[in-house]
Amino acid sequence: MSAVKLMSNQYGKAENRVVRVYRDAARHELRDLNVSSQLHGDFQAAHTEGDNAHVVPTDTQKNTVFAKAKEEGIRSPEQFLLTLADHFTSSFGWVTGGRWSAEEYGWSRIDGHDHSFYRSEPEVRTAALLRDGAASELVSGFYGLTVLKTTESGFVGYPKDAYTTLPETEDRILATDISTRWRLSTTDVDFDAVYRKVRGIILSTFTDHYSKALQHTLYQMGENVIDAVDEIDEIRFSCPNKHHFASDLSPFGLENPNEVFHAADRPYGLIEASIAREGAAERPDVWAGVAGFC
Amino acid sequence: MSAVKLMSNQYGKAENRVVRVYRDAARHELRDLNVSSQLHGDFQAAHTEGDNAHVVPTDTQKNTVFAKAKEEGIRSPEQFLLTLADHFTSSFGWVTGGRWSAEEYGWSRIDGHDHSFYRSEPEVRTAALLRDGAASELVSGFYGLTVLKTTESGFVGYPKDAYTTLPETEDRILATDISTRWRLSTTDVDFDAVYRKVRGIILSTFTDHYSKALQHTLYQMGENVIDAVDEIDEIRFSCPNKHHFASDLSPFGLENPNEVFHAADRPYGLIEASIAREGAAERPDVWAGVAGFC
Amino acid sequence: MSAVKLMSNQYGKAENRVVRVYRDAARHELRDLNVSSQLHGDFQAAHTEGDNAHVVPTDTQKNTVFAKAKEEGIRSPEQFLLTLADHFTSSFGWVTGGRWSAEEYGWSRIDGHDHSFYRSEPEVRTAALLRDGAASELVSGFYGLTVLKTTESGFVGYPKDAYTTLPETEDRILATDISTRWRLSTTDVDFDAVYRKVRGIILSTFTDHYSKALQHTLYQMGENVIDAVDEIDEIRFSCPNKHHFASDLSPFGLENPNEVFHAADRPYGLIEASIAREGAAERPDVWAGVAGFC
Amino acid sequence: MSAVKLMSNQYGKAENRVVRVYRDAARHELRDLNVSSQLHGDFQAAHTEGDNAHVVPTDTQKNTVFAKAKEEGIRSPEQFLLTLADHFTSSFGWVTGGRWSAEEYGWSRIDGHDHSFYRSEPEVRTAALLRDGAASELVSGFYGLTVLKTTESGFVGYPKDAYTTLPETEDRILATDISTRWRLSTTDVDFDAVYRKVRGIILSTFTDHYSKALQHTLYQMGENVIDAVDEIDEIRFSCPNKHHFASDLSPFGLENPNEVFHAADRPYGLIEASIAREGAAERPDVWAGVAGFC
Repeated sequence: MSAVKLMSNQYGKAENRVVRVYRDAARHELRDLNVSSQLHGDFQAAHTEGDNAHVVPTDTQKNTVFAKAKEEGIRSPEQFLLTLADHFTSSFGWVTGGRWSAEEYGWSRIDGHDHSFYRSEPEVRTAALLRDGAASELVSGFYGLTVLKTTESGFVGYPKDAYTTLPETEDRILATDISTRWRLSTTDVDFDAVYRKVRGIILSTFTDHYSKALQHTLYQMGENVIDAVDEIDEIRFSCPNKHHFASDLSPFGLENPNEVFHAADRPYGLIEASIAREGAAERPDVWAGVAGFC
Repeated sequence: MSAVKLMSNQYGKAENRVVRVYRDAARHELRDLNVSSQLHGDFQAAHTEGDNAHVVPTDTQKNTVFAKAKEEGIRSPEQFLLTLADHFTSSFGWVTGGRWSAEEYGWSRIDGHDHSFYRSEPEVRTAALLRDGAASELVSGFYGLTVLKTTESGFVGYPKDAYTTLPETEDRILATDISTRWRLSTTDVDFDAVYRKVRGIILSTFTDHYSKALQHTLYQMGENVIDAVDEIDEIRFSCPNKHHFASDLSPFGLENPNEVFHAADRPYGLIEASIAREGAAERPDVWAGVAGFC
Repeated sequence: MSAVKLMSNQYGKAENRVVRVYRDAARHELRDLNVSSQLHGDFQAAHTEGDNAHVVPTDTQKNTVFAKAKEEGIRSPEQFLLTLADHFTSSFGWVTGGRWSAEEYGWSRIDGHDHSFYRSEPEVRTAALLRDGAASELVSGFYGLTVLKTTESGFVGYPKDAYTTLPETEDRILATDISTRWRLSTTDVDFDAVYRKVRGIILSTFTDHYSKALQHTLYQMGENVIDAVDEIDEIRFSCPNKHHFASDLSPFGLENPNEVFHAADRPYGLIEASIAREGAAERPDVWAGVAGFC
Repeated sequence: MSAVKLMSNQYGKAENRVVRVYRDAARHELRDLNVSSQLHGDFQAAHTEGDNAHVVPTDTQKNTVFAKAKEEGIRSPEQFLLTLADHFTSSFGWVTGGRWSAEEYGWSRIDGHDHSFYRSEPEVRTAALLRDGAASELVSGFYGLTVLKTTESGFVGYPKDAYTTLPETEDRILATDISTRWRLSTTDVDFDAVYRKVRGIILSTFTDHYSKALQHTLYQMGENVIDAVDEIDEIRFSCPNKHHFASDLSPFGLENPNEVFHAADRPYGLIEASIAREGAAERPDVWAGVAGFC
């Protein structure tokens, strides 16, 4: 027997693409989710012995997602994850918790029509639930909201060393794909309303201020969100600086006063920050397994 | 010397990501394009002898895209492609034509703001120009507009053979990513206005009718577009049938009257059709090199 | 009734992911394909009337792919496409032809083991069949084979104009993702053997010569393939010039004699060419709907 | 002043695509990396005040990556990350650490040639360094190695509940994309040799045993790696169960004794586990920001 031990582990069914239609009235409603289920608990023997007595099949987890979408409905991604967590932790004694997560894709009615929709939202909404025994930690968010301002952004006053060639500028394009997640202090809140409020604050903060750096902008976004939404203890950002380089047109006898830009791919700046309410607990365990945001 | 010959060929610089800002007024404007340039002409010696005397460098083509964005501006993707074609065919005697194409990404103002924008449009607009001597053929379009109707769609009356297991249905979800391109009979039209008009017709056609199959729907879209826009000779569609399968919940004692669906990935139906104005010329050369749409 | 007509059209089931295992002996064999089926024929009424009497369901096409993988087996992608074409054109009187295509993913045994494999091949093999009545046109190929030479490549002697800034060089990195397709003059050949032969010629041509431009290299590849394989009438390439720019390290007091490169993403050169056997027929219809290669 | 505080944060330049060629001898050598640099330290004022006095520009970080590739060379991804960490933490007093990471793409010579290569490796090698003051924690790994066994895999003995429909099986295809990372207890080891050794153990473990579940297989892989490589304290896996479903051909009168499979996309099983050496410290901070693996 080797001196090896099983440490953290989880397993389940990822990316169950479930669409829930409400069609009781002539005006249909729609929620479109990508749901992943991951169980925590006593799965020692499955790993070390190949004894599957505790392994709730990932296929069963998938079936449960679709059945619960019928039985309980999908009122919000967060509510649906709580439903799943309640089910699995109450059904199997050795399942002590888990991680459930979802992406939601936003649809709008075509010209206000009753049952015709188009995928209207540029961003993907996210929700993640860490359940540990009776305790639930919820993180909501979104990614893929691309914003750009053509002025009111600069970058000056930074240190220079032997490898610095960047010139200072007080006028540049600032562009990023906003990827953000916020940790809630409660599971009893109108998640859709919080979502719309946070999204609105982030966009208006981006718009209204002079950005001295993307760090500066992200912090102001976070501060404004924490100030405005009591139920949020912490918000994190992981945002690329999508560089738009003013083309050098001087070889062709042309000036370019920030009119023509090359939108570059790689490399890109990457700025990550967590902004928290004073006195809020730190919960690094909640963020484990999430790319970026550290 | 081997009995081998050079046939069709083209070359250039692909995916020049150019962003043009208009900032003469406090209210800035923005066009965001991905432009590809491909030259046609006498490039025989480059291939067979490695003689580059005729090879306008792809780097020069790139420089030209950015310079022309300053010199001529970007009023529409189509206009910009015409500008590029005029330049290259008039600058180099052996360049007899080419293909120029662009994608455009759609931005909206954040809350009507003067210089802050977000990537609002789900679809990507496309334009392609085939120049051959003095003749220009323009094809406009878009891809990535995902639509879904929760009812008013069915599929019945199809032939059955030994490999058929699909049951008929008069009520299903119909969903597709609309990918379409239309061939214009003129280069003198308000391209942005045509774009908005075609997009609107396609969406309203999807909404308004009972779909007997995706073929039926695409044809009606095409017919309505050709009827309404005199400058369009032909429109093509290449659209997946994004299957939404009603989950079988009967093992769990649950009914599922089209309320819970699994949105499947692969395989998917793929429906392609060309609808043309009576009497319009066929121009397969214009569509060469375009994926799908045949 | 509007003056609109249905022109070219096709439909079917795309991306059927079928894996065929041969396990009659202890040493298992494996073919892993992604198969698409598209029917041509009389589908007028489906488009204009919503009459599906001729619409062989895409679901039936899918079933047929999996059933034929059992009944006939998969000996090569090309053979399997011929099997499907024979089936559909002989089963339904109004199906006059179609396009069938496949990608194949290449696996190797892990340490020569009997039934354990890993996805070993960097490139994806392709096959496409155009059937029109009794006539079959087969095109084989691959994409995604990335090659790079650190020297023995240059680019000089090109025309300079007002937009040219590129310096000439006789030593650079040449890198590309090889994407190629070859049109066969017969359906009766060992497709796997031809595949291996063409792949080998392309790699050795890339290796052995001094490249005066990517056009020069692609043409030599094509010439060598046509020379060596009697059953190939035409071969096309659509290859990016994956630019590797030598970093300018002079601001840091460092020389860079082609030792440190930035591998750029966009824009990139894009070179496309067709090389054909003298006297071979031109068949643009065979290439319709294929991206690039024109 | 609001009751908000900055918590964890980091920033830098991501995805610097650097290719280092060694050409002192006729037989060239090549290392191809995608390098990201993220600094930790005192960046409070940049966030809260827009004071950039401590913000080493991401552009400078990029320049440094390319300059160090010349000055110090790239002997392995891990060594290169250590070089970068040493540079940044010694150059700027307020930079107390950071995260540096790299992907490496594997090339082989074409037929043993001196300067011609092809991208031969299916997997991407990874390395990540967490530097905190003088302490370095290195994690090596790879992703994208797809393996499949056509037999010697089953799944039985699992619990059944009201949502269980999966039948037990003692013979199925097992396939996964191996994604793994191992934490080293030293920075003084031959990283390339460790890489080859771990990769070999993982493949041979997959091959040699009867898999009772993917959990069972991953644990055996981890145990074998820890046993064989003294410098590894912990290894984690995050692996999809790439379902290959035997097609139901019975409606067509065909048997299917595990010969024809549908390779499904979503949903998929997802199995994650950490296997550690007895007595090794837990270091969740090292894994922060890494997707999966929890």
